[in-house]
Amino acid sequence: MSPPLLQHWINNKSTTASDSGAYVVTQPNSGNTPHSVASADDGIVDDAISSAHEAFKSWRKTTHDQRRDVLMRVAQVTRRRAGEFYEAWGSEMDVSQFFVDFLVGITCDLIETTASCIIPAMTGDIPPTKRGNEALYLCEREPLGVCLAMAPWNGAIYLSVKGILSPLAAGNTVVLRTSEVTPKTQLLWGSIFKEAGLPDGCLNIVHSSRDSAPHVVERIISDDRIRHVSFTGSSNIGRQIGKMAGYYLKPCILELGGECPILVLDDADLTKVANDTFMHAWLNSGQICMAIERVVVGASNFDALIEAFKKNAPPQSSSSIAMCSSHERIVGLVDEALSKGAELVVGSWPPSKEDVETNKLPNILLANVTPEMRIWSEETFGPIAIVQKVQPKQDESADDAIVRQGNDTRYGLVASIYSRDLGRAIKLGRDIEVGVLRINEGTVGDEATAPFGGTKDSGFGFYNGADGIRHCTQVKTYSIAL
Amino acid sequence: MSPPLLQHWINNKSTTASDSGAYVVTQPNSGNTPHSVASADDGIVDDAISSAHEAFKSWRKTTHDQRRDVLMRVAQVTRRRAGEFYEAWGSEMDVSQFFVDFLVGITCDLIETTASCIIPAMTGDIPPTKRGNEALYLCEREPLGVCLAMAPWNGAIYLSVKGILSPLAAGNTVVLRTSEVTPKTQLLWGSIFKEAGLPDGCLNIVHSSRDSAPHVVERIISDDRIRHVSFTGSSNIGRQIGKMAGYYLKPCILELGGECPILVLDDADLTKVANDTFMHAWLNSGQICMAIERVVVGASNFDALIEAFKKNAPPQSSSSIAMCSSHERIVGLVDEALSKGAELVVGSWPPSKEDVETNKLPNILLANVTPEMRIWSEETFGPIAIVQKVQPKQDESADDAIVRQGNDTRYGLVASIYSRDLGRAIKLGRDIEVGVLRINEGTVGDEATAPFGGTKDSGFGFYNGADGIRHCTQVKTYSIAL
Repeated sequence: MSPPLLQHWINNKSTTASDSGAYVVTQPNSGNTPHSVASADDGIVDDAISSAHEAFKSWRKTTHDQRRDVLMRVAQVTRRRAGEFYEAWGSEMDVSQFFVDFLVGITCDLIETTASCIIPAMTGDIPPTKRGNEALYLCEREPLGVCLAMAPWNGAIYLSVKGILSPLAAGNTVVLRTSEVTPKTQLLWGSIFKEAGLPDGCLNIVHSSRDSAPHVVERIISDDRIRHVSFTGSSNIGRQIGKMAGYYLKPCILELGGECPILVLDDADLTKVANDTFMHAWLNSGQICMAIERVVVGASNFDALIEAFKKNAPPQSSSSIAMCSSHERIVGLVDEALSKGAELVVGSWPPSKEDVETNKLPNILLANVTPEMRIWSEETFGPIAIVQKVQPKQDESADDAIVRQGNDTRYGLVASIYSRDLGRAIKLGRDIEVGVLRINEGTVGDEATAPFGGTKDSGFGFYNGADGIRHCTQVKTYSIAL
Repeated sequence: MSPPLLQHWINNKSTTASDSGAYVVTQPNSGNTPHSVASADDGIVDDAISSAHEAFKSWRKTTHDQRRDVLMRVAQVTRRRAGEFYEAWGSEMDVSQFFVDFLVGITCDLIETTASCIIPAMTGDIPPTKRGNEALYLCEREPLGVCLAMAPWNGAIYLSVKGILSPLAAGNTVVLRTSEVTPKTQLLWGSIFKEAGLPDGCLNIVHSSRDSAPHVVERIISDDRIRHVSFTGSSNIGRQIGKMAGYYLKPCILELGGECPILVLDDADLTKVANDTFMHAWLNSGQICMAIERVVVGASNFDALIEAFKKNAPPQSSSSIAMCSSHERIVGLVDEALSKGAELVVGSWPPSKEDVETNKLPNILLANVTPEMRIWSEETFGPIAIVQKVQPKQDESADDAIVRQGNDTRYGLVASIYSRDLGRAIKLGRDIEVGVLRINEGTVGDEATAPFGGTKDSGFGFYNGADGIRHCTQVKTYSIAL
């Protein structure tokens, strides 16, 4: 029996697209094929944009309270229907109940916080003018129009709703292009927002196969009715999206890769460092842009840290990897490192026969890693962290050496710094090139009230809070002669 | 005698570059060749970026007061040295003393206002957190690093300082790439900022020939040390800049073309409309992105408006065009329109023999323009405006028809609306797709305290005020476990 065909969601209804060009989702650990997925052609893309463009005419005129009320109900419906996320996502990836619960929790927080930030976000300014009583300047915040959102599979629930919420809150309408790995999980937003009372056409969801994605995405971005683009995913794809958005003159938010370090100062609580590292390096198999990939430590407490890792290590465990190609890539990185002298501090290697058969990898921690090994500078996006021991250069303090090593990456998303001296941590923090710096806690986390976004190859722009909503607005300055 | 060679400005000094690849500036109206200009090779580009990158290490640590004081002195020096701008710019283009004085005035306003907005721009936030007393979130505004600024020839003084000011105010350093038409005018900023006390390396200025510009600009944008790009100029070039900035993951501001309309409601003061149109369509030969290109009027007061234009028309005059290729292009647009039935309402046509010899064009106004003529939808960027008479469609009000016609353009920079009823003007204003809407005044103008930026093909992002400075900052969120 062929698997059921997943449809697009346009104008608050499932489409009746044919299976021409459809692709099959394969759960990489079980090998199951839970569904096939309709892949958008130009007609579907045009329908989705037309639906969003038509809906914009009335959604843009809703009051802030009307939009708040819809979003508050979305949070309620999401909590009630959380089981559906577990079911849908579980059919597409091997996700833990713990991780789904965690994500549903922060997702509902984000929805309610966004709803609560509409008023400050949309409050305009009246700047003073040199023209005195001859003129009045009013600077209003307006929605932009139809916004394209693209979200990845790894935080499928949370990262997709991020791309939907800010635009809707500001009075824009949305076309969401799902990840080809988790289309069913992200498609759920269609019926949830509808149940919460979002009018027809305000949220449209289209799928496309990996092969057709470049065409479909350019077709959408190039459309004159599209006025904003947001993308969360890899830096390589992010560059291509940035290039298209720039060429077609669409403002853009790019949330990309991490390769996040934690910086361990010599007065850090090493037991906490060890336990936080296990949690934040291995959660969701390390398939999180914020996951700890590198533990940076000075020579003076390197041995004590290694000891703390060994002493606090949990029982050996393995994690499911979401794509077969990733499994192969990560094994290659670790094998190369071990063959060149890296030391396995925690966990066992190589993967067991059962791990290989179910696309899993052991959760591990490596030390004695050197710059000659690819894993030194490549993001693994797996349940692997490495320890980087650093020596100060001449005239460099031990702390500055740790910061330098932390910054020695193309990315700039999140870093953590551990020290019992908060002043010292903040002072060094100014030199750490990231969008989010966490002090005495692991790299994974997101507070809905505080901006989240990266720099360098981690992209630009940010989500969350009132400023996140403002990213999806146009300032219109009224210059009025009195 | 060959004209003197204009040098780049790096690390607060003129370079001693060779004339290899240099190009000659030709004043298009007199045919004079006042100077030749060194064109940057990869070595010069690297020197400029290295100088800015080195200077960033200390400039980023200056206090807001130190940066304010430098900028306040820049305004003083600019006022004192205004004559040098007139001299330099006058050698490269035929500019009027009136326009230079106007630009120097708003330039000094902008400098002082930017200096005064550093504190609000750099003031961070402490958002509330669900974690209560277990955590503290601090959201600081930080400079980004080295910023690339690119400015055009038409508002050479003002538009170049816009690209310099916001970055410097936030603690960034700058590489300015001059317009190949007005390199000497824009180069003046080097010695002015130096005289005002800007430290070495904070502002670097490079020239490049038109032919080498694509290579030079990509070389700069692709450099890892460059962290922000701003460009003011045409939409065609803006797309190419946007594409590069997106691909290299650099946040970007694009201020592009205008094709600005004024919308004349049936209760407008037509004498004011006529006089403002002459002023704002012809100022600086209409070579301003904010210039009036289209006068949109309903059928009911079309005749009265035409009469007002004729009655208030100033004596016939001509304006200098800055590029020979533009002269030819604009003549083609007008000739085509007249041959297809457009009517000359104000001014004479064709250009006189003397006009042609000195690259000038008569200041004119055309009516009876129809969508079949290219001038209906193409930005002339010359001293030409057209009158668009609109008829409501079925079920459309006269006002809505005027707004629809105003929006019938790829651009979205500035529009003006004229009505004696302010409420009516604001209410319609919500539907006008522009960044700046001016009510009962012409399209050209800029208040340093109020955001200025466009939408659609006019680009994205904005300058001015505290939010303009914030465009050149990174938010760093500190998430602190207590």
